[in-house]
This record gives sequence, structure tokens and C-alpha cells, in this order.
Amino acid sequence: MSIRDDAQQMKLDAPAMAATSIDARNDALCHVREALVGHADEIFAANALDLAAAEKDDVAPQIVKRLRFDEHKLADVTAGIDQLIALPDPVGRVTLDRELDEGLELRRVTCPIGVIGVIFEARPDALVQISALCLKSGNCAILKGGRETANTNRVLFSLIHDAAVAAGLPDACLKQAKSHADIDELLACDREVDLLIPRGSNAFVRYIMDHTKIPVMGHSDGICHMYVDAAADPDQALCLILDAKTQYVAACNALETCLVDRAVAAGFLPRLAAACAEAGVTLHGDAEVGSYVPVEPLGEDGYRHEYLAMDMTVALVDGVDAACDHINRYGSHHTDAICTTDAAHADRFCQLVDSAGVYVNASTRFADGFRYGFGAEVGISTGKIHARGPVGLDGLVTYKYVLYGHGDIVGDYASGRRHFTHRDLI
Amino acid sequence: MSIRDDAQQMKLDAPAMAATSIDARNDALCHVREALVGHADEIFAANALDLAAAEKDDVAPQIVKRLRFDEHKLADVTAGIDQLIALPDPVGRVTLDRELDEGLELRRVTCPIGVIGVIFEARPDALVQISALCLKSGNCAILKGGRETANTNRVLFSLIHDAAVAAGLPDACLKQAKSHADIDELLACDREVDLLIPRGSNAFVRYIMDHTKIPVMGHSDGICHMYVDAAADPDQALCLILDAKTQYVAACNALETCLVDRAVAAGFLPRLAAACAEAGVTLHGDAEVGSYVPVEPLGEDGYRHEYLAMDMTVALVDGVDAACDHINRYGSHHTDAICTTDAAHADRFCQLVDSAGVYVNASTRFADGFRYGFGAEVGISTGKIHARGPVGLDGLVTYKYVLYGHGDIVGDYASGRRHFTHRDLI
Repeated sequence: MSIRDDAQQMKLDAPAMAATSIDARNDALCHVREALVGHADEIFAANALDLAAAEKDDVAPQIVKRLRFDEHKLADVTAGIDQLIALPDPVGRVTLDRELDEGLELRRVTCPIGVIGVIFEARPDALVQISALCLKSGNCAILKGGRETANTNRVLFSLIHDAAVAAGLPDACLKQAKSHADIDELLACDREVDLLIPRGSNAFVRYIMDHTKIPVMGHSDGICHMYVDAAADPDQALCLILDAKTQYVAACNALETCLVDRAVAAGFLPRLAAACAEAGVTLHGDAEVGSYVPVEPLGEDGYRHEYLAMDMTVALVDGVDAACDHINRYGSHHTDAICTTDAAHADRFCQLVDSAGVYVNASTRFADGFRYGFGAEVGISTGKIHARGPVGLDGLVTYKYVLYGHGDIVGDYASGRRHFTHRDLI
Repeated sequence: MSIRDDAQQMKLDAPAMAATSIDARNDALCHVREALVGHADEIFAANALDLAAAEKDDVAPQIVKRLRFDEHKLADVTAGIDQLIALPDPVGRVTLDRELDEGLELRRVTCPIGVIGVIFEARPDALVQISALCLKSGNCAILKGGRETANTNRVLFSLIHDAAVAAGLPDACLKQAKSHADIDELLACDREVDLLIPRGSNAFVRYIMDHTKIPVMGHSDGICHMYVDAAADPDQALCLILDAKTQYVAACNALETCLVDRAVAAGFLPRLAAACAEAGVTLHGDAEVGSYVPVEPLGEDGYRHEYLAMDMTVALVDGVDAACDHINRYGSHHTDAICTTDAAHADRFCQLVDSAGVYVNASTRFADGFRYGFGAEVGISTGKIHARGPVGLDGLVTYKYVLYGHGDIVGDYASGRRHFTHRDLI
């Protein structure tokens, strides 16, 4: 079967998947958890093959860490599945219920998106999380994981798929794409696939966005800012900056640029430089910043540079409006924070910054589905059409308008024989 | 100024527009209404020029009807503005409020989309409606109307823009694109424009979708279905079909295909044929339908044909599941209805049909922002990512996640020093 055949079958089965009850979907998740726990040895054996191949290919240790699927990772993903089972059904929620006229009732009801293609990096736990989110939300999904974990993915996928089908879900609820060539075929399935969620490097996500007519949810860059306001508590600012910059430098929500109000530059920059030097973070900035503390030149993209390393841009701005302007101009609309004790400055920042996450006195690293309490995430979206920020169950459903009448016709309203009441029922 | 210059200026001003208060936006709408009423003669004089030009060019009478802007249309649009003023602020609504941990609060807050490009047909009342919706929702908008009403558009646009600015909104809140060449320039502004809303012919909307990287909201085809179930009340079915088919044939929500359960074909089809003949509707169908009633062959696109005329496809299906399958396979996911007295069939239809509107015993012509009580609409979306169906104020806002902390860092949670509470506050 080609990916297009898979997608066509899935498109036909998607309404049946969407119509499954929450009990059936939760039951499937229970089966999935049992299958994973019951076949742990099989999964670990497949993973050992992937790890051995990675070692032979001299893959970097921090990458190997992502490939590993051990007892600890298994415990994490089963805990995630338990959390998902406990969450309410995202499907069938009535978000608008309005009487249009006596006996004519309009409801806006959430429903699954349909067929979702997810292309993700070589992380076996991501395969489990994404499958579980799609099953819980009643979506069909085509999964393509990184080839470095092909053996682990194959075993995990069979276990999850067979458990879901054994619990009564349609056979086409999950499919796996195995080869890299499948990706280009998937990108052409714009009649069958409702949404693509690519995860991985900026270049890869950009490639996907540029080569498909299917709507894409996700983000390429993660150029996150922390603005140190004149009214910031400097100790708190240093603590937030170090956490946001160093807690996990390769993450999209890690800090890349620190903006400092000129009014406090002379006092704050030397402290920032000392703390960063101690933590091993190299500062980059222009001549003005360099007049206070030693800096390297800006990255090749200037203020749009994403380091994903122990490097950070520092720039001076004149107050909160200028900070917001810098962030909107050079940022990536992902997650940006202000450090301040001035509530008016915080409000102004929250209003003016056009990003999926706008934080007050908190680290940008909180931008994550698990930390938001979504159980898991399929990704983080910087798009503004539908889901924005970490995408959990809510981001995997859309809605339809359901209208209940008793033979109601528009002609009666056009002629003035009847008039709308437009009364909200919830 | 080129359209790109306009768009760049708008992108910079969009956060200030988004931060305006609801009082300022409602005040602007009051000014707009006063300006329109106060300068009615000027508008009508400009419209007379457009109508004279249309007459000289032998434009068809039903098109001329759309171009006309008279006392009646003015009363309609000012009533629409009054309705909009009365609606609650769509911006700043808190749709999720969650304590992540003590003192760490996450809110999901609606906010304007930002910069919207709307390209619409030659209908002066559409210009007023779209401008008013964008102003109320805090969005900046670039408007391009049909050239057949260029004179009317110019006068309406100046009045609306100047009234909004006089009320204190940013100068770049609204811009007008005047030439057809501006459209291609606008399509290339993917860094500045957040959303495009094209209205017009299928071919035009398809062209827009295929030639831009900007997200597009709207629909091309409107292939709406009415399924006459075995348990339908035949009188009600005929009444609904005639309204949906004939009340306004050129509308996207007009009926194109009538599906009939085979079990009632012998009884129902002759009545349908008689009623349609009387109303001037020509039926199209296959040989099996033709064995009951006289039919013309199917349109060139078979079951995917959109007539937008006094023609209708008729097809026989075996029950509600087959009807849903036909609709999902050949329809355009716009608005589809079932006529039945069987509640289980109605529920099954609502669950299985994957369309923006799914109606029970009501005419498909109800798919309209005014009829849904949205005050007005910028268009109807068949996309599933974000807005679906008639798009009013809710479809013109997205949300951002706002996180309020007190120096909270991720390291504390990663290390297990702190634990999330994830308690919903609303």
C-alpha cells in the first residue's frame, strides 16, 4: 500500500473514528498502556538495535540520549497515557448553543480534525505521545518518525495500533510511514490529509511548509526573549534568564535574546555578564552593549539569530514599548517574557507582544504541553489560525455547526413572516 | 505607497490596534455610522456613476442589483453596525484560566489576528460589513473590492477610515487596495499579512489559495446536500428542498444535490419532480433515477457539480450511512442537511457528515452570519483549522497564552523541588 492509498482509506474511515465514544477511545488507551507494559522486553530489544546502530554511526551522545527507550521512558509515557485517560472528552463539547427562533436551535460542537500527518524526530516517546493524543481526540493519524529509531518505532507502532484495533477502533485509525520518500508522497495528499504537524529542525519544518497545500501546524524558529524592565528585581531577572537560557539549550522555548532597559544597563549588565560567564553562556551584542561588558558580535542573522547553544544576544531598548517593538520585529512569535515589578508595564507587555506565549516573571521554558497541564503535546504552534502555543487535545479538534429545526426555511425570514430570536441557551 | 509598504506599516501598528479598548472600538463604529448617514448623498452620487458605467457595459441585471447602494442598503448596513456595537468584546476573553502551581497562573486570552487582507466581490455593503467587523475585533485590514463599484468603494472607504481615525484608532487600521495588480503584491506579503479572506468565484478563490503562503480562510465550492431519509416527512422535505434550491440560487449555501433513500424513491421522486417542474428546477440524475422521473444527464463534474442555477442533481442511496458517505466523498464540506423524523438517523448524520454545517430538518440557506446571529460575516469557511462556517467576530480573533509568575523557573520542576497543581480557575 502506498501512503496515498493509506490516506484515502483513512479519509473514508475518519468519520467512523470521529463517531467513536469516549469510552471506546479511553478503553483503547488502556489497551495501549497494557500492551506497552506487557511487551516492554520486546521494545527494549528493538531499541538496543537502534542504539547499537547509532553507536556504530558515531551519533553524538546528546542525540543518543533522545533515541533511548528504557524503563524510565516507559514509565513516563504510561504516566502520560494515564493523564490523558483522565482528561475529559475534547470531542462533542458544545461551545455555542443558540436559539435562532422558536424550535430552531444552533449548536457549535467540537469534533476531530480528521486525518492528521505527523512527521517527528527520532524519539520513541514522541511516537507514543502523539498516537495517544490522536486516539483520545478521535483523529486518524499517519506517523513518520526519525529513521534512527526505526526498529523501536516499528515495535511501538504495532503494539499501539493492534491494541487500539483490539479495543474496537477502526483499523485505519493509525498508519505508519516508513521511508523518507513517503514524506513527499504525504505532502501531496491534500485531498485526504486535513493537517500536517512537522517537528524537527527549522530547515525541515520550513521545507514542509513550502512544499504542501495541506495546512501545517507548528513552528520553525524559536527566538524567545526576556525583557528586563527598569522596574525588574535584578536577582529574579538573573535567575529567570539562567533557567530560560541554560535549563535545556536545544529546546525551541530556550531564551535567545535578552533585552535590557537602557535606564538600568549600567547596573544590570555587569551582573548579567558575571552570571553568564559562570554558567558558561557567551554574550553577543552591539558596540553599545560592548561598552558595558565584553561581547562577541551578533550571530549571522543579527537579532533574528537562534543559537540553540550556550550563546545569547543582548540588546538595549528604551522601555517597554520599544521592547515589544523589538520582539514583534525580530522575534518568532513563540514565547516572550517580561521581568518587572510594575503591573502596568506587565499589562502593556502582555497586550503589545504578538506571541503565542507572553510571560510575566516566569521562564520561557514553561511553554510546554505537559507544564500547561495538557497531558502531552503534539507540538507548539506559532500560527494564529486555530491552535497557538503548545497543542494538546484542544488543538486537535475543530467544530461543526449543528442546526436543529422542524422544517424551517429561509424564505419565511426573507419575507418577514418570521423573525430571529438569537437567544443564547448556554 | 505600495501595498507592501502599507502592509509593513500595518504590521507595526497592529499591536497598538489590538490594544485599543472596546469603548474606543465601539466609539469608532458610532462615528462610522454617523459618517455614512451624514454623507449619504455623496455615497449615492458615487454609486450612480458605478451604475451608469455598468449599464454602459451591459452588465447583467442580477449583477447590477448587487452593485446598487441605496437608502435600503444604507439602512441595512447601519442596522448591522448597531448590532455589532451591541455585541460583547471578542477580544480579551479568558478561555482558560489555570493555576499551574501556587502563584503561577496561566490564562488563554483571545486577541485579534493582526493584519487581515480581504478581497471581495463588487458589493458596497460588503465593504461596510467587513470594515466594521475588523474594527470591532481590533484587527487591521487591507480591503480590495470589485472594480465595478470603485467609485462607491472610494467614498465609503474614506468615510469609514476617517471616522475610525477621528475616534482615535491608529491611522493604519484600514487601508484600501485599488488596482487588480495590488492583489498579487498582497499575496506575496506573507511576513506582514496574517490571514487572507478571499470572496468571489470558485476559480478566483482557488487562484488565491494556490498563489500565497499566507493562511487563507474561505471556501471555493459550495456543493450542499439535502438527504431525504426513509423516515422523512415528504411534505416537509419538499418545502425544505425548494427553499434551499430556489430561495437564492447563486448563493454558496444553495442546494445542489438531493439524496433520496432508495426505500422511498418510488413514492417521493414523482412528487419531487412535479414540485421542481412547477418551480422551474431541472433535475439531473443517472439511469436509475431516470427510471422513476425524467432527468437530464449529470453536470460535467458528475456528483461534484455546482450549478448555481435552477438545476439540481438527484441521487439514490441506501440509508443514512450511505448518504453520509456520498456527502463526504463528493461534497465540499460546506453545509448539508437531513430531512427525517427519526432522531437516531439525525444523530448519526450529524456525527458522520464532515461539514462546517450539519442541519436537521432545516434549509441549507441558514448558513449565514446574520442568520446565526453574528451581526455580519466576513465569509464562510470550510477549513477546519480555526474558523469553520460563517465567520463573524469569533473567527477574527485568536488567543495567546499569558503566564503570570513570581520568578518561576523550570529547573525547580525538572529537579522535583516543585510540582504542578494544574487547577482550573474558571
